[in-house]
Amino acid sequence: MSQATPATPASPVGLHRVLEPAGVLPQAARRLDARRELWPDEVRISVETLNLDAASYRQLEGAHTGPDGVVDGAGVRREVLQIVAERGKMQNPVTGSGGMLIGTVDEVGPQSPLGLRPGDRVATLVSLSLTPLHVEDELSGWDGLSEQVPAHGHAILFGRSIAARLPDDLDPSLALMVMDVCGAPALVARVVRQHRERGGAPTVAVVGGAGKSGSLALAAARDAGASASVGVVPVEPERERLLASGLADHVALADARDPVALSSAVVRALGAPADVTVVCVDVPGCEHGAVLSTADGGTVVFFSMATSFSAAALGAEGLAADVTMLVGNGYVPGHADYALDLLRRDAGVRSLFESRLTAERR
Amino acid sequence: MSQATPATPASPVGLHRVLEPAGVLPQAARRLDARRELWPDEVRISVETLNLDAASYRQLEGAHTGPDGVVDGAGVRREVLQIVAERGKMQNPVTGSGGMLIGTVDEVGPQSPLGLRPGDRVATLVSLSLTPLHVEDELSGWDGLSEQVPAHGHAILFGRSIAARLPDDLDPSLALMVMDVCGAPALVARVVRQHRERGGAPTVAVVGGAGKSGSLALAAARDAGASASVGVVPVEPERERLLASGLADHVALADARDPVALSSAVVRALGAPADVTVVCVDVPGCEHGAVLSTADGGTVVFFSMATSFSAAALGAEGLAADVTMLVGNGYVPGHADYALDLLRRDAGVRSLFESRLTAERR
Repeated sequence: MSQATPATPASPVGLHRVLEPAGVLPQAARRLDARRELWPDEVRISVETLNLDAASYRQLEGAHTGPDGVVDGAGVRREVLQIVAERGKMQNPVTGSGGMLIGTVDEVGPQSPLGLRPGDRVATLVSLSLTPLHVEDELSGWDGLSEQVPAHGHAILFGRSIAARLPDDLDPSLALMVMDVCGAPALVARVVRQHRERGGAPTVAVVGGAGKSGSLALAAARDAGASASVGVVPVEPERERLLASGLADHVALADARDPVALSSAVVRALGAPADVTVVCVDVPGCEHGAVLSTADGGTVVFFSMATSFSAAALGAEGLAADVTMLVGNGYVPGHADYALDLLRRDAGVRSLFESRLTAERR
Repeated sequence: MSQATPATPASPVGLHRVLEPAGVLPQAARRLDARRELWPDEVRISVETLNLDAASYRQLEGAHTGPDGVVDGAGVRREVLQIVAERGKMQNPVTGSGGMLIGTVDEVGPQSPLGLRPGDRVATLVSLSLTPLHVEDELSGWDGLSEQVPAHGHAILFGRSIAARLPDDLDPSLALMVMDVCGAPALVARVVRQHRERGGAPTVAVVGGAGKSGSLALAAARDAGASASVGVVPVEPERERLLASGLADHVALADARDPVALSSAVVRALGAPADVTVVCVDVPGCEHGAVLSTADGGTVVFFSMATSFSAAALGAEGLAADVTMLVGNGYVPGHADYALDLLRRDAGVRSLFESRLTAERR
């Protein structure tokens, strides 16, 4: 029995696992304590697969590519092993990023609030960059040539970590793809409901509407009672795909980095600026267009990690735009279940995700 | 009469004044049309003083400092004249920033929605970086050695620009200092009222509570009905100053970049995490501490331009924190009047601002 409560009291955000430097959060730590013994509010996962995030894998791959252009997979594997051994977590020291993992719940501390049971097959929805991790098999099942890393070992979830049970009725790869962006539909649904409570049903524009988070955002907007929606996409093939899915009432072509083109496209589609504008495209420079596309009293939700805080703040001020601007928080309670539910209920979402999965497997 | 309506139709955001490149917003333009003739929704200001923003002046000063450490004021002046002549606006090409101006309303287009009248003495609250400007006096009254530039010439306000009448009862320097940060109190008051509509009166933590925007944010929180407030400051002299002002129910000392220290200080003062946390300190790395200081269902308002969008988004996700995070929009309708009103009504705000003004004049 590994339930020998260690001496340091547990912190729900995992401060008790930080070895150095003292006092920082696990994500900022150089080294975590990845011991298998649990504090009372923790959960131990028996690891099956690590999914390195794209930025991290790209960096590792580049660092181990020879002058002949050939990737040294064994070198990539050695470096990942070394990172995990040194840091007690899989956080790429160059990119700072991690990824997620899939595994089976091994043991649940008596005070864990996560609602998991031993045997549950789960995906972690907090980053590997803050998750204590120990690898036992030298990653011998991995050739170092893909982001998917078969692994044996254990990982630790804190009181405030997030993990989602993998559904029985869906291809795990499909479920993972949905869970990866599940914050967007949950937050969009909440914002649409808040607008409805304050007045009529809002109109919604989703910039990047044919992408993963964008298509789920459109489905969530409709589900939560938006009066009309427009999906804005940059190229004709995406326009056709989004039209075929039926997810948006209108589909418009525009370059999101061009404020006048973007806002004109939204106004043409909806008859007026949108009450809620959702930015789901990972290109810089969409802030002013999003603000200009949004009605006074409206809300802009920025999900793109390419968003510039100062461009958004100064842009709205310079346009005298009375809009509420939200930093897209990837966590909303129930977000994974809601996104999976949208996938199950909405044939348009499902077809977009399945065709993407097929393309990735090709 | 200069009211000869030009041929191009007016755009409320000033697109009709953009000469190059075509299609961008005035802030992004290389060159604006600063002609004195008005489009029907515009206002012309007779300029008295340009206030260059601190970052812009610092850059200009540095570029014109000789090896002996002496600033060539005439060189600074020549460069500012050249920028205005070439660009039709005072936007520093290196920093991208501008500043604001003070002047008197000269002519108001018949369709202007700004509510100004000829003779009104105003400060512009949109940046000089997007304001058409023409200088007539070669800036002969300026030695090039300060951010305050006496100037004769004209500037143009668009339909959606913002200008505030300078009040008769306040020192113009005091009024300007308040207007410079007036977005913060207006947005904090709105967020506190929204929390009250949804439930009980919220508690409010203001990080950087002794500063200009921070002290106004504390006053606004109390004015809008917060149940309790804490101002967090980094050093003892600020603690004493904020305590003496009486603006906050509690004053706490903590380094805002240390998430554990910051959140512990807030919880000690309020008995629990804050319902609303307002970040007013211009240092990077305060995002995680702000999220950790905020209760589930609460709101974080980021006013600091040093805020990192991705640190906020990923931090909240990593902490499984169900908090709403707002990009602090500098524009809220009525913001200047509200901030000036707080200064008039609240002796604590007034004393903090007046002592700051005295210090700056010394």
